[in-house]
Amino acid sequence: MRTGIDSPDGRLGIVMPGLGAVATTFIAGVEAIRTHGAQPIGSLTQMGTIRLGKRTENRCPRIREFVPLAPLDDIAFGGWDVYDESVYESARNARVLDAALLDSVRPQLEAIRPMPAVFDPAYVPNLEGRHVKTQADAMSRVEAVIDDLRRFRQEHGCTRLVMVWCASTEKYLERQDVHATLDAFEQGLRDNHPAIAPSMIYAYAAISQGIPFVNGAPNLTCDIPALVELALKTGTPIGGKDFKTGQTLMKTILAPGLQARALGIRGWFSSNILGNRDGLVLDHPDNFRTKEVSKLGVLEDILQPELSPELYGDLYHKVRINYYPPHGDNKESWDNIDIFGWLGYPMQIKINFLCRDSILAAPVVLDLALFIDLAKRAGMSGIQEWLSFYFKSPQTAEGLRPEHDIFRQLIKLQNTLRHLMGEDLITHLGLDYYQELVEAL
Amino acid sequence: MRTGIDSPDGRLGIVMPGLGAVATTFIAGVEAIRTHGAQPIGSLTQMGTIRLGKRTENRCPRIREFVPLAPLDDIAFGGWDVYDESVYESARNARVLDAALLDSVRPQLEAIRPMPAVFDPAYVPNLEGRHVKTQADAMSRVEAVIDDLRRFRQEHGCTRLVMVWCASTEKYLERQDVHATLDAFEQGLRDNHPAIAPSMIYAYAAISQGIPFVNGAPNLTCDIPALVELALKTGTPIGGKDFKTGQTLMKTILAPGLQARALGIRGWFSSNILGNRDGLVLDHPDNFRTKEVSKLGVLEDILQPELSPELYGDLYHKVRINYYPPHGDNKESWDNIDIFGWLGYPMQIKINFLCRDSILAAPVVLDLALFIDLAKRAGMSGIQEWLSFYFKSPQTAEGLRPEHDIFRQLIKLQNTLRHLMGEDLITHLGLDYYQELVEAL
Amino acid sequence: MRTGIDSPDGRLGIVMPGLGAVATTFIAGVEAIRTHGAQPIGSLTQMGTIRLGKRTENRCPRIREFVPLAPLDDIAFGGWDVYDESVYESARNARVLDAALLDSVRPQLEAIRPMPAVFDPAYVPNLEGRHVKTQADAMSRVEAVIDDLRRFRQEHGCTRLVMVWCASTEKYLERQDVHATLDAFEQGLRDNHPAIAPSMIYAYAAISQGIPFVNGAPNLTCDIPALVELALKTGTPIGGKDFKTGQTLMKTILAPGLQARALGIRGWFSSNILGNRDGLVLDHPDNFRTKEVSKLGVLEDILQPELSPELYGDLYHKVRINYYPPHGDNKESWDNIDIFGWLGYPMQIKINFLCRDSILAAPVVLDLALFIDLAKRAGMSGIQEWLSFYFKSPQTAEGLRPEHDIFRQLIKLQNTLRHLMGEDLITHLGLDYYQELVEAL
Amino acid sequence: MRTGIDSPDGRLGIVMPGLGAVATTFIAGVEAIRTHGAQPIGSLTQMGTIRLGKRTENRCPRIREFVPLAPLDDIAFGGWDVYDESVYESARNARVLDAALLDSVRPQLEAIRPMPAVFDPAYVPNLEGRHVKTQADAMSRVEAVIDDLRRFRQEHGCTRLVMVWCASTEKYLERQDVHATLDAFEQGLRDNHPAIAPSMIYAYAAISQGIPFVNGAPNLTCDIPALVELALKTGTPIGGKDFKTGQTLMKTILAPGLQARALGIRGWFSSNILGNRDGLVLDHPDNFRTKEVSKLGVLEDILQPELSPELYGDLYHKVRINYYPPHGDNKESWDNIDIFGWLGYPMQIKINFLCRDSILAAPVVLDLALFIDLAKRAGMSGIQEWLSFYFKSPQTAEGLRPEHDIFRQLIKLQNTLRHLMGEDLITHLGLDYYQELVEAL
Repeated sequence: MRTGIDSPDGRLGIVMPGLGAVATTFIAGVEAIRTHGAQPIGSLTQMGTIRLGKRTENRCPRIREFVPLAPLDDIAFGGWDVYDESVYESARNARVLDAALLDSVRPQLEAIRPMPAVFDPAYVPNLEGRHVKTQADAMSRVEAVIDDLRRFRQEHGCTRLVMVWCASTEKYLERQDVHATLDAFEQGLRDNHPAIAPSMIYAYAAISQGIPFVNGAPNLTCDIPALVELALKTGTPIGGKDFKTGQTLMKTILAPGLQARALGIRGWFSSNILGNRDGLVLDHPDNFRTKEVSKLGVLEDILQPELSPELYGDLYHKVRINYYPPHGDNKESWDNIDIFGWLGYPMQIKINFLCRDSILAAPVVLDLALFIDLAKRAGMSGIQEWLSFYFKSPQTAEGLRPEHDIFRQLIKLQNTLRHLMGEDLITHLGLDYYQELVEAL
Repeated sequence: MRTGIDSPDGRLGIVMPGLGAVATTFIAGVEAIRTHGAQPIGSLTQMGTIRLGKRTENRCPRIREFVPLAPLDDIAFGGWDVYDESVYESARNARVLDAALLDSVRPQLEAIRPMPAVFDPAYVPNLEGRHVKTQADAMSRVEAVIDDLRRFRQEHGCTRLVMVWCASTEKYLERQDVHATLDAFEQGLRDNHPAIAPSMIYAYAAISQGIPFVNGAPNLTCDIPALVELALKTGTPIGGKDFKTGQTLMKTILAPGLQARALGIRGWFSSNILGNRDGLVLDHPDNFRTKEVSKLGVLEDILQPELSPELYGDLYHKVRINYYPPHGDNKESWDNIDIFGWLGYPMQIKINFLCRDSILAAPVVLDLALFIDLAKRAGMSGIQEWLSFYFKSPQTAEGLRPEHDIFRQLIKLQNTLRHLMGEDLITHLGLDYYQELVEAL
Repeated sequence: MRTGIDSPDGRLGIVMPGLGAVATTFIAGVEAIRTHGAQPIGSLTQMGTIRLGKRTENRCPRIREFVPLAPLDDIAFGGWDVYDESVYESARNARVLDAALLDSVRPQLEAIRPMPAVFDPAYVPNLEGRHVKTQADAMSRVEAVIDDLRRFRQEHGCTRLVMVWCASTEKYLERQDVHATLDAFEQGLRDNHPAIAPSMIYAYAAISQGIPFVNGAPNLTCDIPALVELALKTGTPIGGKDFKTGQTLMKTILAPGLQARALGIRGWFSSNILGNRDGLVLDHPDNFRTKEVSKLGVLEDILQPELSPELYGDLYHKVRINYYPPHGDNKESWDNIDIFGWLGYPMQIKINFLCRDSILAAPVVLDLALFIDLAKRAGMSGIQEWLSFYFKSPQTAEGLRPEHDIFRQLIKLQNTLRHLMGEDLITHLGLDYYQELVEAL
Repeated sequence: MRTGIDSPDGRLGIVMPGLGAVATTFIAGVEAIRTHGAQPIGSLTQMGTIRLGKRTENRCPRIREFVPLAPLDDIAFGGWDVYDESVYESARNARVLDAALLDSVRPQLEAIRPMPAVFDPAYVPNLEGRHVKTQADAMSRVEAVIDDLRRFRQEHGCTRLVMVWCASTEKYLERQDVHATLDAFEQGLRDNHPAIAPSMIYAYAAISQGIPFVNGAPNLTCDIPALVELALKTGTPIGGKDFKTGQTLMKTILAPGLQARALGIRGWFSSNILGNRDGLVLDHPDNFRTKEVSKLGVLEDILQPELSPELYGDLYHKVRINYYPPHGDNKESWDNIDIFGWLGYPMQIKINFLCRDSILAAPVVLDLALFIDLAKRAGMSGIQEWLSFYFKSPQTAEGLRPEHDIFRQLIKLQNTLRHLMGEDLITHLGLDYYQELVEAL
């Protein structure tokens, strides 16, 4: 192993605010993988390979064999939720995984019960919190979370923890003064400032303890200067925001492809139907607003209409989410893309994705937890932009345009791993393969 | 301009075997762009930009402002066809472009009449050739084409020529001894060997004169050792095969995206309906076979099932093309993709592309002509793998796996341009943007 | 011709409130049919046939050869609009028909200019009326419309008039006391009652003069007891409401088909994108509400969940309309239907309709105008339920469930025509064809 | 009960050549319905209602409460197959129904074992028959089947039998002299004539014994004069051919709807993917040909292009079936319909049906068995055209055009039931509801 990366020996604890469909699908899946050989499909860390050296060397190890990641057998799970149900009960209610699969790991899932959640009804109007922390002010709730972390680490014998936000989307919030500096933020915690969301309390608690934090929802959370400052101070890696799944995943695949060929886009209409708890929360306009902002930015950042106004200057982009109970967790999306080519002639692309939200999200939780733990052990701190690959709305340094193109994000991720391990970066130039032919003449 | 690339001053002649829907849409479009400001949408050379340096430098020139390409105003067009119609008549029959647009450039299009084609009914059973070369043997037909080229260059005052195959697909042909060496091939030309297809006669004629050759159909053509040898000898760049448009374009966008996220694929069913002359030719099983081989290889080369058997080992891939006259040139494709994620749970993606075949192909002809002329002026010869971006079935050096992933192809193309112009290659690593934040503490 | 139906000799005037996309597409189309043989596709009266007698008689005349309808050459057009544009200008702005087609009948279209409209901004918040009647109270506006009708009839030498509402949807309105009796309504006209919508003023004016009235939008309009009473008193046929086109047309085709086979339906999600003026009006929640009520009732009335609760008792039905400018008048709809069969096993049907709103509506205007004129000449008055075939939300007698099944509606229409002309009604029993075989033994 | 219909008392035996996916889904379903209340969704006899009298009478009984049908509890099942597997084993292999459901009725399904089949490899090249009758000539095989029927009736204590062909499609066969008369056919049986298919041997055996016969595949079978003659002679009802499910079901719903509105159709492209045994059999061109003929006739018979050449004269209709193993029994169909409206303007309808073949077919087997048993008890014999509702390619009297419009088929079926039970036929005229309003004035 390369000098400078601490070994992953010892147990890693993954703790998650929100033990709903995503977190329980993740936990149950890892248990099924550990106990009876289910496959961690969709996980780059477990299934993905990485090419090293020249094409002709044929070096393509699995990523988990290339970089020193925590093995699946050395992980403990925990979390917080507003419903006092075991992971088994919660997974049954989510109806993502088959009953038979859940029953095969029932004891492990029943053993995991949520700690009381930090909850504020102003941030999630469509849910009712019952299993919640009762401390009066924000700073006391921070301390309660830190206590939870300490107790969890001890009880499960963990040498390291990472925290991943897996709860629903909080209502829309813009950056304010209280978010601008660490001092202002800590004063806000003491003052119970209304612009400090529950997710920020979790993030502050984790980061203050040097525990890496990942945000899987579109809320601001750690995407504020105060918490970036704290992360750099405490040497803690952070990342976010909003797990990239379903329709946005497709969008960040397709848009770079159309742009690659300089095809114009006049309109992109995206519609979703879904019937799970997430759909119910997003039925409230305040929460949908947060999601909409996260979803709309994608195209503009990829297509950069200011560089190509003839192609993307008049793009009309609309996103709709419709609550439709008959589908449950089986989100279905429909995209209509009005493109134009040579001389402006119009064409249409229509995509219908019959997807499963939590099935796509679960391996993302796994990869992010393992990679951010790696980052910590490699001494990286602050925003981990190389993890943009996993996010709908990647957090970047102030003034740096986020990269949404999933293929550039992947190269960034892979070249970061190569860089960490002392391998050559790959540029895909490849003229050398042909030079020798010329020289051979 | 960087030392070592000759200037594009003087007129470039683009000559095309096959003046059907694709070539006439290309020619009429360039004329419309020259005379009344139509937009060359879909052309990377004309509309695309390229990022140079660091993200924060904001250097993103148009490609045509970055590398020294032939300007659109300095291009002459010519070609060969089995039908003795002017480009105006042929374009009217193809029904791709509006009558009004064609009429706006009618004199220019009427001035272009096809030279008699090299034709062999054994290679295109569903077409009847009437305007054809009558020389008895293959070598004499080669000489007739070389005469055509000499005359064209003189008549149009061209300093340089490039040849782009825009005709229909020839019947399926496997490599044989006659293709193995230049000597064997030239003997075959003299012997009128049946495995020397008409497209090879054009290619040999061009390459022997140092004229760059591009193959837009899936026929073998210049993808044989004999012609690669000739290209290296005469210092001629060559490229192929099969313009990447429509369904395969989408496939090389989508498959890398799914693979990036380690999602499994169990089945991919692709169906097409189209009603143009190409559809008629492909209705013959021998010709469809050539196309099918070109289309089927794509997924295997992208997904590399030998590296990820759990994800892609059982992939069932089927491609169907159906002749359907009501649609004319408006090809429509439908893809059903059976994917699976976390723990093997199945999902489906369905894509319906209402496309226009020749509208997508025309800018590809333009880009390839301009880039291969650039390659010639830059002293590059033989296979131009950096142009894989434009091909369904990229020609590569012996033993080198073709790269089908459109995003890697794009990086290869862009880094080649950067390399030619002495700019830094881009790796998307970008850790430096964050290093300074850490150091600032 | 059958006794009791007056001859259609003399000129028929068709006058329409709302000279927008639908009305101008209708008028321009009839002019094109009259002057250069365009085809009235989509019009049952012009293109449809009707089977008479036994199957073996092979009697299938065109409907227009079977019943005495006004010939297209004897029709004059007029109307009202809030924009003071000629039909030519309005049709150009609507962008439904090609410029070339419109120019071929330009003089006829320019000759038709709208009369000032009855307008009330409270009923159409998203439009601004400029070319409007200025009379202070409702009754005076009624009289102004009656004056318009008198003048139109005289100027165009019409022997008969019919009025067809072709304007946009008014805001949602429920029945109130002022609509309950003719006396109350007329008092309301004098009192300028706010629950008397502009469309009711047109309807009252027409019906009071014995002029048949058809309502092509989902507004209440003549679907109130007061105006039914007036229609019976003055011997005037009336019909409505809401032209059946696009998605609802498909729904009334498909739902009876699924029900015919006793297949269950769990969910039906309907989404639309359209970018014309109608789309803009429907972007206002009050106006969408009127449309939504009209669209939602369809399924319940066809499926009758109270009779088949196991099949349709839990049906979740949702309809969304999204304003999407890139599509213009080319409405596109997408339906997802979750059905279930034998033992409850689920299946899905997905329908994507790339339709043209006004192209579907124009022949409906023609048929309704001709048929309701026939009804008038046949001495029929009040609600013409046999015209349900053309409406999303058919007006019926008090207490009578509307029939939405398009196939029953068609049989009703055809048997009504057979009845009017003294032909046998058709029951599709057909046992007699086989009886003779048995008897022959 | 109405005079003239025998009572359904006593047990009905349903025997089926072909115990594959369709038959086993049917049998297992009926067992599940009998033992634990599963729902016979998709069965008109069990779930459907029928309106009687005037709309205002509100008389809508279930069909099974209106006509005297055999109750589900009095049915026994049997059959023949080339594979010697119990119905349980065969159903497991078919993978249509869940393992849990099959296990819930396992003893009943295991008790049903196939009798050896009449098999001829010339008629089903893609299958290999192992459990087959070994009699040398056709007439002896007829007698073997009659023996089977006698034994089955006795063993299961049945008072009545019906036979339903549920096996795969036989290869394409045109009518020949041997099919023209009963005498010629019986001579052919004795001579072992090659144009007598296995399905005809079953049909002859059943009909000769007065056992009603239904043909669920597109083979000729009983659609030949010889067997119609036999059916009339023995007083036996017969019906066919080809269960109407999936894509053709949709086609017979949609085409009448478009025709009702006089919309033109230029092209209809139908593509299917399926991966079950049926798909494998249909992968052989001879068998696909039989299916294709059955599928293609539908549109022409509904649209009657000779009556409306402007609308349907140029219709291009193409049907493709593609074997695609990843989908198993979950057939998926895709239709593209190019329609045109007012003045010829084009529109498109695209339908994607994610269906389950056997789930749609099983209730059709049930209904046909019960209705043809009713016909027998009602003294009806020969072709039962009122059952056209259930067939892709309805068998009719010589010279009578088949009716494919599913809505007319339904009215025919319902009016036949009303006629049998002495109820008024329904014409949907309904003018009487309004007459009273006029008279009340």
